[in-house]
Amino acid sequence: MQTRTLLARALLAAVACSLATARAADPLPSWNDGPAKQSILAFVANVTNPDGSGFVPAPERIAVFDNDGTLWGEQPVPVQFFFVIDRVRAMADSHPEWTSKEPFASILKGDVKAAVDGGERGLLELFMATHAGMNTDEFAECVKDWITTAKHPKTGKRFLDMTYQPMLELLEYLRANGFKNFIVSGGGIEFMRPWSEQVYGIPPEQVVGSSIKTTLELRDGRPVLQRLPELNFNDDKAGKPVAINQHIGRRPIAAFGNSRGDQEMLEYTHYGRGARFALLVLHDDADRECAYGPARGLPDVHLGAFPAALDEQAETNGWTVVSMKNDWKTVFPVAEPPATRLGQ
Amino acid sequence: MQTRTLLARALLAAVACSLATARAADPLPSWNDGPAKQSILAFVANVTNPDGSGFVPAPERIAVFDNDGTLWGEQPVPVQFFFVIDRVRAMADSHPEWTSKEPFASILKGDVKAAVDGGERGLLELFMATHAGMNTDEFAECVKDWITTAKHPKTGKRFLDMTYQPMLELLEYLRANGFKNFIVSGGGIEFMRPWSEQVYGIPPEQVVGSSIKTTLELRDGRPVLQRLPELNFNDDKAGKPVAINQHIGRRPIAAFGNSRGDQEMLEYTHYGRGARFALLVLHDDADRECAYGPARGLPDVHLGAFPAALDEQAETNGWTVVSMKNDWKTVFPVAEPPATRLGQ
Repeated sequence: MQTRTLLARALLAAVACSLATARAADPLPSWNDGPAKQSILAFVANVTNPDGSGFVPAPERIAVFDNDGTLWGEQPVPVQFFFVIDRVRAMADSHPEWTSKEPFASILKGDVKAAVDGGERGLLELFMATHAGMNTDEFAECVKDWITTAKHPKTGKRFLDMTYQPMLELLEYLRANGFKNFIVSGGGIEFMRPWSEQVYGIPPEQVVGSSIKTTLELRDGRPVLQRLPELNFNDDKAGKPVAINQHIGRRPIAAFGNSRGDQEMLEYTHYGRGARFALLVLHDDADRECAYGPARGLPDVHLGAFPAALDEQAETNGWTVVSMKNDWKTVFPVAEPPATRLGQ
Repeated sequence: MQTRTLLARALLAAVACSLATARAADPLPSWNDGPAKQSILAFVANVTNPDGSGFVPAPERIAVFDNDGTLWGEQPVPVQFFFVIDRVRAMADSHPEWTSKEPFASILKGDVKAAVDGGERGLLELFMATHAGMNTDEFAECVKDWITTAKHPKTGKRFLDMTYQPMLELLEYLRANGFKNFIVSGGGIEFMRPWSEQVYGIPPEQVVGSSIKTTLELRDGRPVLQRLPELNFNDDKAGKPVAINQHIGRRPIAAFGNSRGDQEMLEYTHYGRGARFALLVLHDDADRECAYGPARGLPDVHLGAFPAALDEQAETNGWTVVSMKNDWKTVFPVAEPPATRLGQ
């Protein structure tokens, strides 16, 4: 082989190697280069630079994430609602009265839309009937059993495999930069905790959500916490800052959401002193996931709406709005499906 | 110098050096050698040995600590009560009606015992009047200002310097062994958070306590959480396991308390699966701190009582009971007073 060829090969190898390093060094490989990705990288660089004016000590790097529509899909209804449907079906034999009692009757007939349209009172009744009446250990097992196998009716994917790959990378990137990530969701706190650690790397004590009341009881002489059919806290809208204060006790410096329910959480984060970051995920990708708003002329939805006013507020406040269509290279995880992690 | 002398000196130096290493390696230097200290060391060795049958993965190493009477003193009344007294005095000018209204009148007259003996309803009123009516940021400042200067009327020490040195070492020892320490106290969650990180190394998000309700309001267009004069949660007795589940979401493997109010928390911890540890601090040291029970014939007290039944339960369940008098070499910190840490 000639010297020239050897040199050329060595050069090529060197270039390939440095490209691989660049790829390996990209902490957000599923994000297209663009203003959304750049805003995240710039914020993290700013708060982690000990010599910069925006430096935030690691213990104060609190990030809060909505779950439904932000970390995984929530259409046509949030995942927890599919759990409710399956629980109603499984419990129906012991509740013959449900065949003629709304919203249970609609659920059993397969008419989920009618059940949702029936209003909040009926929905609350559905949740209480299917989420209470057992202790916290039993409920955690029940959720874990369900979520390792249950699949989305349209995509056929397991729900855990419908978490968003770019957001999983973002969670990991923040964690690697000294952030403590919390979920602050309108969903059930005990519905998320059995799998949040394996799937999101977020341990139970960093999961905040809506809850029902529990009471200490003895079973076979051992204390258990029995779940009562009574709402304890609704972690949505103005409830989110209240819950953040109750569970975390300090104002986050970064907040991530996707809908009207997250507005107060983003505002509460935004108006703290020092460097702040807020991001909203806009679902504008009908091909790969869903397209809904009603912001930017996208179709309106019953749950998880992103109104035009929120879009305007984001613009005014300098919040990042992620276009799933343009900012994300991939939507769902491929290489390592999160559902398998839970089974291990 | 003769070779023999040199050798002898070298030997002496080596012995001195290894003694120093042994002292430096003792993670609990303020604990006398005895069954209490040995039980702690044995438990930690057991759950951190990856080859042992008692191994517990680090994320599940959750330890919960009562605060009043466990991490710092609580006689003649809990520290927060001194805060209430000072707040009542400071607010009295704006509340002329208090001079003739109980329990405020007793507090203003300096008769704390009468105020306490007046019953729980009056105490709740005292707390609501002095803890609400401002936002969470203002309250945190108020607590921080007070606690950096306020002193115990009997000892003349700052309250933060009446934390227990052996327990500070224990917190650090557990942390160094992969434990996550939480406070689970009947005291106010927002009364402890402004100083828990500097004094105990426990960040706000790992502090659980009693709370009042808050509501999101706008002040000058910015969202703040206003504190309302309404009890949200009483974190005592059966409330402690409920709060542990709500905030932490998993059963602790170790629990530390000192009174009847901690019984349910210790039971809830004790009856989990796998290796468990429970410890009670018995205040039997009239010379260095206080002596009260009524267990073991010690004097009874109004708040923070350690009943004989709890002592018997500890014996039956194999819980460790710490005798302050016999198990602790020192009680209060000397070298680095915690109060100075907060001022820095």
